[in-house]
Amino acid sequence: MDIDIFRLVKKVREQKPVVHHLTNWVTIYDCANIVKVFGGSPIMAHAPEEVAEMSSIASSLVLNIGTLTPDFVDAMEMAARSANSKGTPVILDVCGAGATRLRDAQCHRLLQRVKIDVVKGNVSEIARVAGEDVRTKGVDSGEYYGKIETAMEYLAHTRRCTVVATGKEDYVTDGSRTFVVRNGHPMMENVVGTGCMATSVIGTFCAAETDLAFASAAGLAAYEIAAEIAVAGSHGPGTFKQQLYDAVYSLDRETVEKMKKIELLHKQPVSGGK
Amino acid sequence: MDIDIFRLVKKVREQKPVVHHLTNWVTIYDCANIVKVFGGSPIMAHAPEEVAEMSSIASSLVLNIGTLTPDFVDAMEMAARSANSKGTPVILDVCGAGATRLRDAQCHRLLQRVKIDVVKGNVSEIARVAGEDVRTKGVDSGEYYGKIETAMEYLAHTRRCTVVATGKEDYVTDGSRTFVVRNGHPMMENVVGTGCMATSVIGTFCAAETDLAFASAAGLAAYEIAAEIAVAGSHGPGTFKQQLYDAVYSLDRETVEKMKKIELLHKQPVSGGK
Amino acid sequence: MDIDIFRLVKKVREQKPVVHHLTNWVTIYDCANIVKVFGGSPIMAHAPEEVAEMSSIASSLVLNIGTLTPDFVDAMEMAARSANSKGTPVILDVCGAGATRLRDAQCHRLLQRVKIDVVKGNVSEIARVAGEDVRTKGVDSGEYYGKIETAMEYLAHTRRCTVVATGKEDYVTDGSRTFVVRNGHPMMENVVGTGCMATSVIGTFCAAETDLAFASAAGLAAYEIAAEIAVAGSHGPGTFKQQLYDAVYSLDRETVEKMKKIELLHKQPVSGGK
Repeated sequence: MDIDIFRLVKKVREQKPVVHHLTNWVTIYDCANIVKVFGGSPIMAHAPEEVAEMSSIASSLVLNIGTLTPDFVDAMEMAARSANSKGTPVILDVCGAGATRLRDAQCHRLLQRVKIDVVKGNVSEIARVAGEDVRTKGVDSGEYYGKIETAMEYLAHTRRCTVVATGKEDYVTDGSRTFVVRNGHPMMENVVGTGCMATSVIGTFCAAETDLAFASAAGLAAYEIAAEIAVAGSHGPGTFKQQLYDAVYSLDRETVEKMKKIELLHKQPVSGGK
Repeated sequence: MDIDIFRLVKKVREQKPVVHHLTNWVTIYDCANIVKVFGGSPIMAHAPEEVAEMSSIASSLVLNIGTLTPDFVDAMEMAARSANSKGTPVILDVCGAGATRLRDAQCHRLLQRVKIDVVKGNVSEIARVAGEDVRTKGVDSGEYYGKIETAMEYLAHTRRCTVVATGKEDYVTDGSRTFVVRNGHPMMENVVGTGCMATSVIGTFCAAETDLAFASAAGLAAYEIAAEIAVAGSHGPGTFKQQLYDAVYSLDRETVEKMKKIELLHKQPVSGGK
Repeated sequence: MDIDIFRLVKKVREQKPVVHHLTNWVTIYDCANIVKVFGGSPIMAHAPEEVAEMSSIASSLVLNIGTLTPDFVDAMEMAARSANSKGTPVILDVCGAGATRLRDAQCHRLLQRVKIDVVKGNVSEIARVAGEDVRTKGVDSGEYYGKIETAMEYLAHTRRCTVVATGKEDYVTDGSRTFVVRNGHPMMENVVGTGCMATSVIGTFCAAETDLAFASAAGLAAYEIAAEIAVAGSHGPGTFKQQLYDAVYSLDRETVEKMKKIELLHKQPVSGGK
C-alpha cells in the first residue's frame, strides 16, 4: 500500500497551522524553527494568564517536559484543558521519563488529568510511561522491539491515544494500526534537539490531519528524509543541523517518494487487544 | 538627501555599547548574538535584584514580551525605570500584541508606567497597541500602509516616542519625520527570530545615536542589507541564518552605500497633528 | 614534558559521561550541544524537586550564573550538595561576577556553602571572586597576568579548588601546578556563548578524569584547537560556530598533537604558598 506522505507536507505548507508549545528551554528555538520551516506558525507561550487563550487559537498543542518544574506543568495542564475542550490535538513528549521521580510523577499527572492525543518518547521513556521498571539514561531502541510493541499497545489502549517510540526505527501505533518509519540517520544523535524537533514536527502534522497516527508517522518520515539529505551535504553535526532546515524547506514530492521508508505493519493488533 | 547609515555601523563597532535585554526565551541567543556581531556588548539579565543596576551601566535597554509572564514584566518595569532615570533609551518589542488579553494589558501597562522611547512591532501589533481592534495571528504589511501610518503617528504623538512597524517595507516615525526602509528579503520570514533580532539591532543603534528614528531606520537597513547578502549566498533558511551573521560582521561602507534602500518620506506630518 | 590531551578526548568519547547543568538561558543550547558533540551526555534540569536526583546520576555538575535569580541559585546549591556527597566534581562559571552586587553575593554564597571544585571565569571575573575591586564590563586578559596569577593562587588555596582564567591565554591552576593554554582564536570573541561552552567542556573533561587541573586544561586546549580549525574553514562568526561543532566532532590524535599549545608552567608555586 502506498502511503502518501507528501500530501501532508503540502497541507501543512498551505494551512500554515498555529502550533502552540510549552516546551523546554534548551531546544525551544529549534522546536519553533522546525515548525516554521515546515510552513507552520509556532507560538511559544507559557504564562498561566494566557495559555488557555493561546491554545484556543492554535491547531495543535505540543507539551515537552525536558526542563519541567511543577509550576510549568500546571500551565501545561491549563493549556491542555483548553485544547481538549476544542478538540485540538495535544502531543506530549515524555522527555526524561524514568530519569527522576519528578518526571514520572508529572507525566502520570498529565496523562491522568487531561486527554493526551499523542504520547511520544524514545523506547525507554515509552516503556517507563507504560509502567515498566526502566531507568532512562540514554536512548535504546531496536532490540527492545518485542517489548516496546507491547508497552506501546498497552499505552495506546489504556490512554486511548497514539503512541510514538523513536529510535533507529520509529514505531507509531494508535492501538489498531502500527506504522514503522525507517528513515533517519545516526548523525541525528550527535545533535541536541533532534528528538524535541521530531515532536514539534508531529505536532505540526497533527494540526493539519485528523488521522493522528498517520500524521505522526508522515511527519517523522518527512523530517527524517530531510535529515538524510542534510547528512549527505554536511561535514559534521554543526553544518548538518543548518542543512536540515534547508532540506526541510526544499522537500518536494519526487524526493519524498524516492526516499521514504514507511510501512503500515498491521491493521489489527496481533493479539486481540489486551 | 543622502542618509549615511554606515556612519552608525562604524560608531557601534567603535563604541561597543552595552545593550541590556529582558527578552523572550525562544530567541534570546540570537538577540544577544546579533548585538555582538554588530560590535555591541549584550547583557541578558532579568532578576529583579539586579535589573536596575544592569540597566544603569547599559547604553540602551531592549524589552521583548515574546514569552512574557506578569513577573517578568515587573522586572521589565524596574529596568525601564532605571533606564529612564539615566536617559538611556528603552526599546519595546510588542511581540504578539493582539494575540491575548495578557499581552494587550502588559503592553498598555508598560506604556503607561514607564517611558518607552521606541515601540516596535509588525503592522498588526502596532495597530493593536495604537488601540485598533486587530487580532494578531500573523504578519501583514504593505497594503495596510494608509492605516498603519495613521496608527503610527497617533502612537508617536500620544506616547511621545519613535514607532517602528516592520513588514515588506519598514516604517519608522517619530511623529514629525518618517523613514521607510525597503531592504530585506522574504526568506527572513522563514526563520524564527528575525523580527526579535531586528529589535535588538534597533537597540544597539539607539545606544550609539541620540536621533532614535534615524538610529532605528539605519539599524534596520544595515541588518536587512546583510540579510539580502546572506540569502544570495545560502541554500535555505538554515544556512541563511548563519550567513546572516557573517554578512553583518563583514558589512563595509561600499556595500552598504550600494545596497541601501532608505528614504526620508517627509519632515512634517502630512496632516497637521495626528 | 608531553601533555597527552587526546587521551582525554578519547576517554570522553568512550565513557559518554552524563554532565548535569544548571546554566543560563542564553547559551543553554550551546552548552548542551558542545557536551554532546564531544561525546558526553548533557542533562539540563533545574527544578528543586529533581536537581539532587539528577546530580546523583551525573559524572559532573556545571553551574553557570549568566542569567541567575536567587531561586535558581537555591537549586544550584541543592544540586551541588548532592554532587558533593558523591564526590562528583562541581564546576562554577562566575559569569558576570563584578557586574552587579547580586552576582558577587551569589558567587560568594555558593563558594561558602558548597564545595566548588573548579572556578572558571575571565580575568576580571576571577579577580573579582578573589576579592579584588574590579568592575566587570568586558573581558581583559594577558596584560593582567602578573596580578591574575596571584588572584588565582589565592583562590585556589583559600577555596581548595582548581581555578581557570580564560583570555588570550588561558591559565589553569590547582595551587601547586599551573597550566597555560595558548590555543584559540580572536573570532571566538565575536560569538556569544564561546565562554559558556568552554565551561561545559571543562565539565565534560572533569567527568572523565580525576586530575581536574589537567582535565580543565586539556578540555580547553581541545576545544580551542577545534576553534582554530573552524575559523580556517569559515567566513565569519555564523559559519564559524557551526564549523566549530564539526571540528570538535572530527578531532583526531594527529591534529591535536600537531596543533596543541599547552604548557605546564611550574609544579610548585613560585612563591612558597600564597
